[in-house]
Amino acid sequence: DVVPTTRALISVSDKTGIVDFCKFLASKNVHLLSTGGTAKKLREAGLEVMDVSEYTQSPECLDGRVKTLHPKIHGGLLGVRGNKDHEAQMEENGIGKIDMTILNLYPFEQTVKGGGDFNQCIENIDIGGPSMLRSTAKNHAATTIVTSPDQYEEVQKCIEENGGTTLALRKKFAARAFSLSAAYDSAIANWFTNQLGEEKPVTTRVYKPEFPLKYGCNPHQKPAGISSVLNSKLPFDVLNGVPGYINLLDAANAWQLVKELREATGLAAATSFKHVSPAGAAVAVPLSDVECVAYEVTPEAAKELTPVALAYLRARNADPMCSFGDFAAVSDVVDEATALILKKEVSDGIIAPGYTPEALTILKSKKGGKFIVLEATKDYDPGQIEYRDVYGMTFAQKRNDIIITKDHMTEIATSKKEAVTDSVVRDMIVASICIKYTQSNSVGFAKDGMMVGVGAGQQSRVDCVKLAGRKVKTWYLRQHEKVLGLKFKAGVKRQDRVNARVRYIEGDFTPEERIRWEAQFEEVPEPLTTSEKEEFMKQADGITISSDAFFPFRDSIDHASKYGVSYIVQPGGSVQDKQVTAAAEEYGMAMCMTGVRLFHH
Amino acid sequence: DVVPTTRALISVSDKTGIVDFCKFLASKNVHLLSTGGTAKKLREAGLEVMDVSEYTQSPECLDGRVKTLHPKIHGGLLGVRGNKDHEAQMEENGIGKIDMTILNLYPFEQTVKGGGDFNQCIENIDIGGPSMLRSTAKNHAATTIVTSPDQYEEVQKCIEENGGTTLALRKKFAARAFSLSAAYDSAIANWFTNQLGEEKPVTTRVYKPEFPLKYGCNPHQKPAGISSVLNSKLPFDVLNGVPGYINLLDAANAWQLVKELREATGLAAATSFKHVSPAGAAVAVPLSDVECVAYEVTPEAAKELTPVALAYLRARNADPMCSFGDFAAVSDVVDEATALILKKEVSDGIIAPGYTPEALTILKSKKGGKFIVLEATKDYDPGQIEYRDVYGMTFAQKRNDIIITKDHMTEIATSKKEAVTDSVVRDMIVASICIKYTQSNSVGFAKDGMMVGVGAGQQSRVDCVKLAGRKVKTWYLRQHEKVLGLKFKAGVKRQDRVNARVRYIEGDFTPEERIRWEAQFEEVPEPLTTSEKEEFMKQADGITISSDAFFPFRDSIDHASKYGVSYIVQPGGSVQDKQVTAAAEEYGMAMCMTGVRLFHH
Repeated sequence: DVVPTTRALISVSDKTGIVDFCKFLASKNVHLLSTGGTAKKLREAGLEVMDVSEYTQSPECLDGRVKTLHPKIHGGLLGVRGNKDHEAQMEENGIGKIDMTILNLYPFEQTVKGGGDFNQCIENIDIGGPSMLRSTAKNHAATTIVTSPDQYEEVQKCIEENGGTTLALRKKFAARAFSLSAAYDSAIANWFTNQLGEEKPVTTRVYKPEFPLKYGCNPHQKPAGISSVLNSKLPFDVLNGVPGYINLLDAANAWQLVKELREATGLAAATSFKHVSPAGAAVAVPLSDVECVAYEVTPEAAKELTPVALAYLRARNADPMCSFGDFAAVSDVVDEATALILKKEVSDGIIAPGYTPEALTILKSKKGGKFIVLEATKDYDPGQIEYRDVYGMTFAQKRNDIIITKDHMTEIATSKKEAVTDSVVRDMIVASICIKYTQSNSVGFAKDGMMVGVGAGQQSRVDCVKLAGRKVKTWYLRQHEKVLGLKFKAGVKRQDRVNARVRYIEGDFTPEERIRWEAQFEEVPEPLTTSEKEEFMKQADGITISSDAFFPFRDSIDHASKYGVSYIVQPGGSVQDKQVTAAAEEYGMAMCMTGVRLFHH
Repeated sequence: DVVPTTRALISVSDKTGIVDFCKFLASKNVHLLSTGGTAKKLREAGLEVMDVSEYTQSPECLDGRVKTLHPKIHGGLLGVRGNKDHEAQMEENGIGKIDMTILNLYPFEQTVKGGGDFNQCIENIDIGGPSMLRSTAKNHAATTIVTSPDQYEEVQKCIEENGGTTLALRKKFAARAFSLSAAYDSAIANWFTNQLGEEKPVTTRVYKPEFPLKYGCNPHQKPAGISSVLNSKLPFDVLNGVPGYINLLDAANAWQLVKELREATGLAAATSFKHVSPAGAAVAVPLSDVECVAYEVTPEAAKELTPVALAYLRARNADPMCSFGDFAAVSDVVDEATALILKKEVSDGIIAPGYTPEALTILKSKKGGKFIVLEATKDYDPGQIEYRDVYGMTFAQKRNDIIITKDHMTEIATSKKEAVTDSVVRDMIVASICIKYTQSNSVGFAKDGMMVGVGAGQQSRVDCVKLAGRKVKTWYLRQHEKVLGLKFKAGVKRQDRVNARVRYIEGDFTPEERIRWEAQFEEVPEPLTTSEKEEFMKQADGITISSDAFFPFRDSIDHASKYGVSYIVQPGGSVQDKQVTAAAEEYGMAMCMTGVRLFHH
């Protein structure tokens, strides 16, 4: 299946490496046919080249538009080798075999980006190139189609080793050529239809596989992989580790969250993701002394906290039980202080705009070298329309590219307008940007620049409030003096202390569970009673709740009132807005109507 | 910008309407050029047609492979009208203007589906057609490219009205031609690369827009729409209403759930979806007397229940507070009994394999005619690989096409193996198929063929168990005699009764809330005390829990034990499997290890 090359047709816009490659071909006695600029360049390099018009003996006309659209070219490419009739007819009509075509298509997107007007773009549509490419690829049983400089070396090696191209190589290059042709016409079709402003008859998306994944959402979902839209970048580089499907879903959402939080508040931001929702998120607001104790930060360590370290420490401590094995994202360059915090925690990976060398060294050594480190691409443009296949149909929608800022926090529907201070607005933004990246239905509670309770993925709004409210209650009670005073035995691990505190607060042990729980303490703790908890929760105050959609009934407000909620953010738009607003008034809350729904799926 | 047509080139594989269209063109004195079968057909209809080979005066050779790849054809298509040099050169070289090309490309997928081998498929790749198509489309300032019989009428009308084709029409058709060419080469490229079994250099997906959506996930996400993969069907037909983005996400997931449940259990199945997770799901298992009272089904009504009605009634009553405004799916043809249940409930839509005429009439009149009715496509093939764009990158994975059956319920890790009866296996299947379509992390509790608690979208496994457990508790307590005996005032609405019962069970009213709650009753109910609830929950028994991933610690088992769990289904694979199994043993539970993870995002 080896075919020697006797005549090659060359027409390239990207002239990288073409001279050397043609010198090689000439050294193997290949007859070179070429057009215009390519021919000139090859001649300047001392190579003997025949012009296509000389070869076809067809007059130069129509500014070269039909130079290669000629039976002597396409017959030479398409004639079936070994077919006696074809060979006789080729002989008779002076059609010589052409065994190889070397060409590339100047990317149409580049033409458009070059800023040409409609007519210039149309003028740049290549007609002869795709025709030669397709003829050569179709007849790959005998002919070789080379479409990119990065293939020259492989062809050269193949000819050196075999005295010609192998069928395997010709097939592979032919398949690639059809991909290229499809991508080229896709770009034209999409541009052209956009020019018309009409609904596209079809939409063609061309994806470039970037790297395979071990599997998709589950181990039995193979194959799986990550692609980029052709001629676009990925939103990150992998600096360490091998990310999986869910890691990357986390990373993509977590990164957008901290980026937007940074932009909206001007503060370093962080989030701790688990299963495509935040377990916590925060901006860099200093810790109170009680918080230091509750989060196990020594006074010395507290002094070392940089803004980005502080933001992650808060994000991780919103719900440290859930954050076990998280995927982290931070808005700023990761420094040593942040890396040292992560080093202590069980975590799967991080995405950030950059890393100091010290921080990168620390992170790369985590998890036996398997900790995933992603660097977000600067000035990244994720495109406008997102496609998603579900059960054979494809959903297309504009990205949720709305940026939540303080300008969304101005419509206060309740009488307590002056209560909405700058720090309240900050918490409103924190809670709202977080739920923008939380699976719906969702609500989030924020305080001191920190999400303190996320209610994700629920089937009713009031369930979101109950769920997040219980998390807020646990977060609060972690600062109760009886919790702060728990005396763990030496050797009880950090995450076990975290979990044991939560169970102490919840208190609903089974007998079997209680035995194991008590074994972790130097002295068995006195229970935290219901009335102690209720008493402590009375000081809960100044919390903000944000909801991804309107509150359909006042029940959510009734529930929120039990968890120290003073401020509410919601889009509004329910038929019961009036009753909901009345409920907020009753409890003395300030409620902001943003007009922006934030469902996320 | 009107261009009269003087010469048209015709080469069509789909000959629908071509004779009439050419008769029209001939009547306008258009000179017809054609090839092979098309020419023959036109001549038989009495039309005067010139063969392309006669026109080019180029000898027939190479089995017609290069017939149209000729300067007289492409020069005639590409020559710039009004350019004096071009016109002079065309004159000189005997190149006549060709103003219109009528052709179509035989879909490559059809060639493949036709069952040809590799060489036959390659042989069927059209070379001349795409070249003519692209030349004509490029030069659309002067030429008209017609690529489908459904365009003939529009061309005819345009010529009748204007004496030629308008620029607007030529542009529109040119854009469509490039889409077609892109789709054609995409199909070749994808097939070709699959033949090689190598990683694709690029993957091209061609989508056909089916219908626009008002907006995407949120009102500010415009445009949005539903497409099908070219040459595939949608998984449903819309019989009534205008579905939105989230409705369709619900429908796609809910339908798969009931379809698989039907296949695995042989029983009619139903689910009630909210926000892309089930609020409830069930198969047709008869109701107990107490359930009839709890679900407000009169004994007479109970007798009328068909299997599909029974399944939906159960699914809706797992968590009727959450199911408010649901999207329903049922596995069987919707009958009048089912439609009458839906009629009473607040619901957005339904998907089913079919509807009786009576049922359809009832459903179409719901919600002022806006109730969404979808009919699932029979024998639907959703394809193998799903693509999903998130923040500019594209995730590709094999669909989660695993079918959960009783064969997955055989590996019992605990000693109580004989406890796993047929009805337990049924509940194991119900719970597992449900969580396959629930946002992760998730667990589900099932009893009597019915999901009685779904814990969706949580950031830790034990949170899923706590969340679902509370729902199970509420579901159980709805059957407590004090709840069954609540005396509502006349006029209190169905959904308000549902909500009031839940709040009675929860009991944690704010003072403001209590006043409004009490106002709904004939007589103010005595509280349901904590000890009454605990006493009642002691009879909870025989419940199955299924988890979408392994239990990392025994804490989930400890919590599950409080809600009457006797059976556990999980994939297994944790480093703590031994401790988790020991916990199940302690509580006397039977635990099945499926080896199948079911994350869903």
